[in-house]
Amino acid sequence: MFYNAWWSPLAASAVVVVLIVLLAFVLRNIAHRVITRVVNRAATGGAITSRFRKGAATDGIDALLHERRKQRAETMGSVLKHIASIVILGTAVLTVLDRLTIPIAPLLTSVGILGVAIGFGAQELVKDFIAGMFMLLEDQYGVGDVIDAGPAVGTVEAVTLRVTRLRDVDGRVWYVRNGTITRVGNESQGWSRAFMDVPVAYDADVVSVRVLLEHVAEETWADPELRESKIVEPPQVFGVEQLSDSSLVFRITAKTLPSAQAEVSRELRLRVKTALDNAGIPMVATA
Amino acid sequence: MFYNAWWSPLAASAVVVVLIVLLAFVLRNIAHRVITRVVNRAATGGAITSRFRKGAATDGIDALLHERRKQRAETMGSVLKHIASIVILGTAVLTVLDRLTIPIAPLLTSVGILGVAIGFGAQELVKDFIAGMFMLLEDQYGVGDVIDAGPAVGTVEAVTLRVTRLRDVDGRVWYVRNGTITRVGNESQGWSRAFMDVPVAYDADVVSVRVLLEHVAEETWADPELRESKIVEPPQVFGVEQLSDSSLVFRITAKTLPSAQAEVSRELRLRVKTALDNAGIPMVATA
Amino acid sequence: MFYNAWWSPLAASAVVVVLIVLLAFVLRNIAHRVITRVVNRAATGGAITSRFRKGAATDGIDALLHERRKQRAETMGSVLKHIASIVILGTAVLTVLDRLTIPIAPLLTSVGILGVAIGFGAQELVKDFIAGMFMLLEDQYGVGDVIDAGPAVGTVEAVTLRVTRLRDVDGRVWYVRNGTITRVGNESQGWSRAFMDVPVAYDADVVSVRVLLEHVAEETWADPELRESKIVEPPQVFGVEQLSDSSLVFRITAKTLPSAQAEVSRELRLRVKTALDNAGIPMVATA
Amino acid sequence: MFYNAWWSPLAASAVVVVLIVLLAFVLRNIAHRVITRVVNRAATGGAITSRFRKGAATDGIDALLHERRKQRAETMGSVLKHIASIVILGTAVLTVLDRLTIPIAPLLTSVGILGVAIGFGAQELVKDFIAGMFMLLEDQYGVGDVIDAGPAVGTVEAVTLRVTRLRDVDGRVWYVRNGTITRVGNESQGWSRAFMDVPVAYDADVVSVRVLLEHVAEETWADPELRESKIVEPPQVFGVEQLSDSSLVFRITAKTLPSAQAEVSRELRLRVKTALDNAGIPMVATA
Amino acid sequence: MFYNAWWSPLAASAVVVVLIVLLAFVLRNIAHRVITRVVNRAATGGAITSRFRKGAATDGIDALLHERRKQRAETMGSVLKHIASIVILGTAVLTVLDRLTIPIAPLLTSVGILGVAIGFGAQELVKDFIAGMFMLLEDQYGVGDVIDAGPAVGTVEAVTLRVTRLRDVDGRVWYVRNGTITRVGNESQGWSRAFMDVPVAYDADVVSVRVLLEHVAEETWADPELRESKIVEPPQVFGVEQLSDSSLVFRITAKTLPSAQAEVSRELRLRVKTALDNAGIPMVATA
Amino acid sequence: MFYNAWWSPLAASAVVVVLIVLLAFVLRNIAHRVITRVVNRAATGGAITSRFRKGAATDGIDALLHERRKQRAETMGSVLKHIASIVILGTAVLTVLDRLTIPIAPLLTSVGILGVAIGFGAQELVKDFIAGMFMLLEDQYGVGDVIDAGPAVGTVEAVTLRVTRLRDVDGRVWYVRNGTITRVGNESQGWSRAFMDVPVAYDADVVSVRVLLEHVAEETWADPELRESKIVEPPQVFGVEQLSDSSLVFRITAKTLPSAQAEVSRELRLRVKTALDNAGIPMVATA
Amino acid sequence: MFYNAWWSPLAASAVVVVLIVLLAFVLRNIAHRVITRVVNRAATGGAITSRFRKGAATDGIDALLHERRKQRAETMGSVLKHIASIVILGTAVLTVLDRLTIPIAPLLTSVGILGVAIGFGAQELVKDFIAGMFMLLEDQYGVGDVIDAGPAVGTVEAVTLRVTRLRDVDGRVWYVRNGTITRVGNESQGWSRAFMDVPVAYDADVVSVRVLLEHVAEETWADPELRESKIVEPPQVFGVEQLSDSSLVFRITAKTLPSAQAEVSRELRLRVKTALDNAGIPMVATA
Repeated sequence: MFYNAWWSPLAASAVVVVLIVLLAFVLRNIAHRVITRVVNRAATGGAITSRFRKGAATDGIDALLHERRKQRAETMGSVLKHIASIVILGTAVLTVLDRLTIPIAPLLTSVGILGVAIGFGAQELVKDFIAGMFMLLEDQYGVGDVIDAGPAVGTVEAVTLRVTRLRDVDGRVWYVRNGTITRVGNESQGWSRAFMDVPVAYDADVVSVRVLLEHVAEETWADPELRESKIVEPPQVFGVEQLSDSSLVFRITAKTLPSAQAEVSRELRLRVKTALDNAGIPMVATA
Repeated sequence: MFYNAWWSPLAASAVVVVLIVLLAFVLRNIAHRVITRVVNRAATGGAITSRFRKGAATDGIDALLHERRKQRAETMGSVLKHIASIVILGTAVLTVLDRLTIPIAPLLTSVGILGVAIGFGAQELVKDFIAGMFMLLEDQYGVGDVIDAGPAVGTVEAVTLRVTRLRDVDGRVWYVRNGTITRVGNESQGWSRAFMDVPVAYDADVVSVRVLLEHVAEETWADPELRESKIVEPPQVFGVEQLSDSSLVFRITAKTLPSAQAEVSRELRLRVKTALDNAGIPMVATA
Repeated sequence: MFYNAWWSPLAASAVVVVLIVLLAFVLRNIAHRVITRVVNRAATGGAITSRFRKGAATDGIDALLHERRKQRAETMGSVLKHIASIVILGTAVLTVLDRLTIPIAPLLTSVGILGVAIGFGAQELVKDFIAGMFMLLEDQYGVGDVIDAGPAVGTVEAVTLRVTRLRDVDGRVWYVRNGTITRVGNESQGWSRAFMDVPVAYDADVVSVRVLLEHVAEETWADPELRESKIVEPPQVFGVEQLSDSSLVFRITAKTLPSAQAEVSRELRLRVKTALDNAGIPMVATA
Repeated sequence: MFYNAWWSPLAASAVVVVLIVLLAFVLRNIAHRVITRVVNRAATGGAITSRFRKGAATDGIDALLHERRKQRAETMGSVLKHIASIVILGTAVLTVLDRLTIPIAPLLTSVGILGVAIGFGAQELVKDFIAGMFMLLEDQYGVGDVIDAGPAVGTVEAVTLRVTRLRDVDGRVWYVRNGTITRVGNESQGWSRAFMDVPVAYDADVVSVRVLLEHVAEETWADPELRESKIVEPPQVFGVEQLSDSSLVFRITAKTLPSAQAEVSRELRLRVKTALDNAGIPMVATA
Repeated sequence: MFYNAWWSPLAASAVVVVLIVLLAFVLRNIAHRVITRVVNRAATGGAITSRFRKGAATDGIDALLHERRKQRAETMGSVLKHIASIVILGTAVLTVLDRLTIPIAPLLTSVGILGVAIGFGAQELVKDFIAGMFMLLEDQYGVGDVIDAGPAVGTVEAVTLRVTRLRDVDGRVWYVRNGTITRVGNESQGWSRAFMDVPVAYDADVVSVRVLLEHVAEETWADPELRESKIVEPPQVFGVEQLSDSSLVFRITAKTLPSAQAEVSRELRLRVKTALDNAGIPMVATA
Repeated sequence: MFYNAWWSPLAASAVVVVLIVLLAFVLRNIAHRVITRVVNRAATGGAITSRFRKGAATDGIDALLHERRKQRAETMGSVLKHIASIVILGTAVLTVLDRLTIPIAPLLTSVGILGVAIGFGAQELVKDFIAGMFMLLEDQYGVGDVIDAGPAVGTVEAVTLRVTRLRDVDGRVWYVRNGTITRVGNESQGWSRAFMDVPVAYDADVVSVRVLLEHVAEETWADPELRESKIVEPPQVFGVEQLSDSSLVFRITAKTLPSAQAEVSRELRLRVKTALDNAGIPMVATA
Repeated sequence: MFYNAWWSPLAASAVVVVLIVLLAFVLRNIAHRVITRVVNRAATGGAITSRFRKGAATDGIDALLHERRKQRAETMGSVLKHIASIVILGTAVLTVLDRLTIPIAPLLTSVGILGVAIGFGAQELVKDFIAGMFMLLEDQYGVGDVIDAGPAVGTVEAVTLRVTRLRDVDGRVWYVRNGTITRVGNESQGWSRAFMDVPVAYDADVVSVRVLLEHVAEETWADPELRESKIVEPPQVFGVEQLSDSSLVFRITAKTLPSAQAEVSRELRLRVKTALDNAGIPMVATA
């Protein structure tokens, strides 16, 4: 580790130190710019084009998406820049100390022992950060989405690199560490599906029940209010889904805008009940 | 590791030792100040602005929040200062020993072997501390909040970096290690939701039940006592939530102040029952 | 680590540096080509020949398979190329620094400490990537397949090296990390099976029920519409699958095209119900 | 590792060895004193002031608490002193050997290989000890407390750094490793809560039942025997906790001294039953 | 690490390099041959002799077993040969570089850091390969066997070193990683057992029921069709397997050829029902 | 690592080798003696004084306890002595080799690689041994105790450092690895508790039932046979343990000698039934 | 690492190499003999003396045990011999290379990197082998025993160091990795217990039922056929095991030869039913 100089050691050291420091700052600047550019491209590229969004409901969405992308790029970029700065400046400091023939072994020893001691315990932290980084990169969810994160289901209120903050339907606020989320179910991307099972008596007339339900489906699709802002495809009626000694089960199903399935389901239940009542066909208990 | 001095070794050593010690204390002071400032900013910045808090119930809250912030800053700062002191002074000691050409390998060996032996087992401890640090930093919960910490649900009595102390509804005191809390549900942030399901007979008149429940909702919202200190939005009535051969289920729901949902629910149950009794509509068993 | 040259050190260094850089780029190019070739062969070789695909339903499949193969090859190749570039260029940089007698220990120390700290936490990430790599290599599933990935069941929308994106039947989008998928069930390879259990009374005539069901099986197989695009083998009737004090259970089963089993099952239920009704044999509750 | 002396090597070695040994014993003494003081302060400081303890039941408690504190300080101190002694004396031995130019590498090799082999397996042991240390430090529980330790619930009979010994209600003695206790529920700190649910018929008079239960609550609070040694706050009656087609559920609840909730519950049950009998209101089955 | 030559360094290096390369290729050839021989012997030796296989059903089995052995030997051998080649050639390259006094530390550093980073994550992969290797070696199952692999049950379609591909009874294709299979149940080795429980009334005549069932057992064994290709031992009747206030349970059981138990069970159910009907003994519900 | 001798190297080496060997054996003897003494004291000190043991049943217990202590001391001592011998002799061998300037690096390399490879897998083994060591040290259980070890409950037949052998009530012999036992419930220390719940009708006379049960309790305590060898405290009657619309539950409980609770429970059941029969009070079904 | 010879280097090297090789083979032979002896003693010593084996049923057992011991000794010995050979010969090769001043660092590097990469993944394999080794050493079970290995219950067909092969009662063959077996229940050591619960009506005469059952117990013990080869102690009758409003439960129990409990249970059921029928006491449903 000795510097075998062929010119005067003191002058050489001074020059070298200045060069190292300059180089470090130049490298750091370059690194930050590269990170900014890469992160921006990644954040923009991962956006999902929603096929079924339409009408008034999507007015604020574009602004929201733009905001989301910007926020994602900043969140991801800041951590990467910190890491780049620490590596580059740390290396510069150590190199300068080394050039000045100041022993760095004791410093490395102290930091190393502490580092290993903490390193083991910090695994989970790093896992959380890496998971958060990729979640943002892949745009798995953003503020305002309704997600199923495993231990909690609710509306996303904040996404940081370490935790995701949800608010569930009872108003409870959940903090879920990103690293513990092995799978995420996002109910706010593309479309949702509302469905309703209709059990009728074993001896009911299969054909007439089917016709009745198809009529309900057409009516629902024809309703301008629903079609405008909730349902995205004509509802479908499936034939005998289940067959037991006491009941035949039909199913009626409808593709809806994201997160609108609860309302559409209520509407379907009301319409099917009315139709069955009018036709005098009672629902029966399923086995 | 030899110090190739070009002046007298003894004098050089003395000067170097004094310089190292001075430098160490200066660095330690700087580190402590930086930590204090960073931690204070972090503790203050993470506070959550509660949207729905209002009236008399919030009198003591500002003082509480201020106290909480101060406590968080101190808890976080103390550990970081300890770590900084240990690293800086440890490095100084090793450097001095090294400068005096006293061998430090035996010391490092003893500490190292013990350190590794303990390090493996201390993972959980470090995990707890890191988790506690971030919980405080993100202000996930504080003393007085009602939280669901997984193995225990209750009111937070104390938050340290290693454990959270809760008292559940039966008076049992729970000590939960922070590192084992993968997700936290906080019932004391923003608002809670009270709701009640009302099952009526399959052949009940959908419209009149709905009108009845909406009437209850309006009355409840109109009650000055509830509105003053408990409910924050007009209660809502959802249509047919569930439909079976024996019952129709309606739902009535109300946003309340944090942790007031139990009382509001009781009030709703009483009012709905009275209204149903008066209208002669019995509740039925759900399938 | 000194270079004991027997010619002029400066000239030697310059020549060596140029040689190293040239060699590095040559090696990198060779590595990329090898990776491209290997990956293409692997992606092509793993394709599965579907025995039962036929008729109109397979029109778009060949194009799809070709697209899938190309996508797989690209996905796998890009990561491998990145790794090869990093190793080769990193080695070149370090070798150049070393040749110029610039100390690289400080750099290695900084990167090393950070690397270990991150390395522990990044295990899961590497696991995800390796799992994803082999999933693609073995062509376990592709976009459009219906799979059971454990935490979620649905249609594959995207396969990256880290996560698989599914959409379940309710429209929920699931992001599942590849490393957490220990087993995958793919419903879209080769064939599926539809079946229906038919419980009749304990004292029913075993032979006549069997004949009846076999008749239904023949009719179903004879139906040109089903045979054309859904069923791939004549349906079979199994004798007494279950025997209790109240019922005899027969089973009727049919091999179908992948993912067509739900539709075929509905058809079977309808046909069996009609046949039983005509023969006056009621289904009974199973114990 | 050579000692480049500028005086006679033999004399120098002798002097150095004596100095090292003296220094080691001085350091060890200082370390022990520091540990004693720190541990005593920690053990005393962590004590919890019980708000509700009163009357005859608390006679022996102060003595018990004092004893507990002393025991905790000793348990914690002994392990720390052992560790300090091992590190300081081990370092001294190695330094002496090194000064005498006796090779210590073979010794370190033997101990190191064995140490690593055992170290992996001893993780759990260290975990247990660290967990025990902090449990004592935080005074989570002590001998005589009734705790829920996860795998076993019972009265603490002994707390060591590695295991906690409980005796459950059936007389079974449980040894639970401290490291496997991720959360502890202590029923003997501050207060407990007794409660009783009272289901009455759906058509019962809500107001009169409530009055009746409030009367029971007042009587119970007025009972001098219970108030003296068991109940610490007037019992409360909650309104309609649950509402179904067959029953209305009221709840009566009382804060008690720690671990007195079972007795108070029995008393409440007896009084409520008598009151209901007298009023002719039967309890009903809850749905 | 210097080569202290006593002849001309350049010539010496050239000779040594050539020798090293030659030696490496010779060693690699030897290693491959040894692997081929060892693997062939291992693959052949592990075959299981089926005691009960007989008649027409075993016609294709010998060819299948031979094919299986060959495939196993090849699968195992290819990986081992790759490993041997990598170790031997890698060592040769490093030795040549070292002999030519080219510094290999930078290369090792790059590869090492990446290697450790990947190594942690690749554990699972290595686990899968080792598990697969031993499964093949021990011939736990092969293509065509019906196995219970834990997460999936079905017919083996392919066995590679990393995954096993099954197809379950619904036609779903399962990819199960070998390392996640902690136990395997193979239904296709030796024999299977069909059984049927026969519950009769509590007051039934124990002796006559037993005689009846033994008669069925004899008839079944006497049936040439079953005996030819399905049942391998006379069926047995066990006495009172279970005794309650409402029923006596008898059991009839038969050893069958591997995987033939479902068919034999159906046959037994049919025969027992007919016999009971003829004897006028009804089956009853078990408690 | 060179030995810089100032006298003749050969003679010096011989003397040193002899000294090392002598020293090693002396150290080993000292270590063995220290271990024997420490282990004996630990084994004796951990014994538990049984408060309730009395009469004829304790005749053989003292001898048993003495035997147990001796066996524990031997089991613990033997492993520790092996470890001490290996460390001391291993160090001696390496030191001798080193003194004779024989290279020990190759040996360490071989042993090291194998050691690490095995070390990872041997974790569980070391865990088992450490757990066993502490179980013996803390005298958690011994041969003849009835314990609940988690996966198995039964009478201890043998305790080794690695496994505990139990025989359960069905005669099955269980081998449980000590490291997998996170908690142990020992039913043979101090006392056990027998109890019986007595549900009577909702309208039964609370006072008279209580008197009746207290009478049974007194009679049982008065029975000389039971008091002699089974019950250690007068049985107690608890008031209304549970209260529903159909039943009042009383509880009668008795402290017994360890493992005698089953017999005492049977006796209590018989006596309570007789008393209830005589008083004409029937037991009722609990809800 | 230079060999500072004071005689001719070439001759010295030759002599040393020959000595090393000789020494290695001598050491290997010694190691093999020691292993053979130690393993034989261990295998023989661990045998369990069965207390209750008697009569004709034990004819083949001694031969079996002898065969088992021999097989165990061979299985254990072979692995240990392989390990010893690898360590000794590996060390010899490295030492020879080192003596000849051939650089071994490149070889160690290649093997080391691969070794670590594989080492992590091979943990489970080593775990399996260690577990298997100790299972054999402790003779936990052998071929022919009926064991409960956790994931599978059945008759042991083969025990290797890595897996245990069982065949369950349905003929399914299970391969269970030894390392995943944390506890084993062996039904074939010493004795088993058959038992039968007899519920009679709440108002049945306790004494007469007891007498009846004791009569059945005596008869069963008196039966020469059972006593000869199945039951090893007179059956016992336990009094009121359970007491509810509808039934009294008695228990009859019998110690049997290992694995004979199923047959004895059937016999007991038959005899108890006949006795109850004759006495006109019906069994009743337990609550």
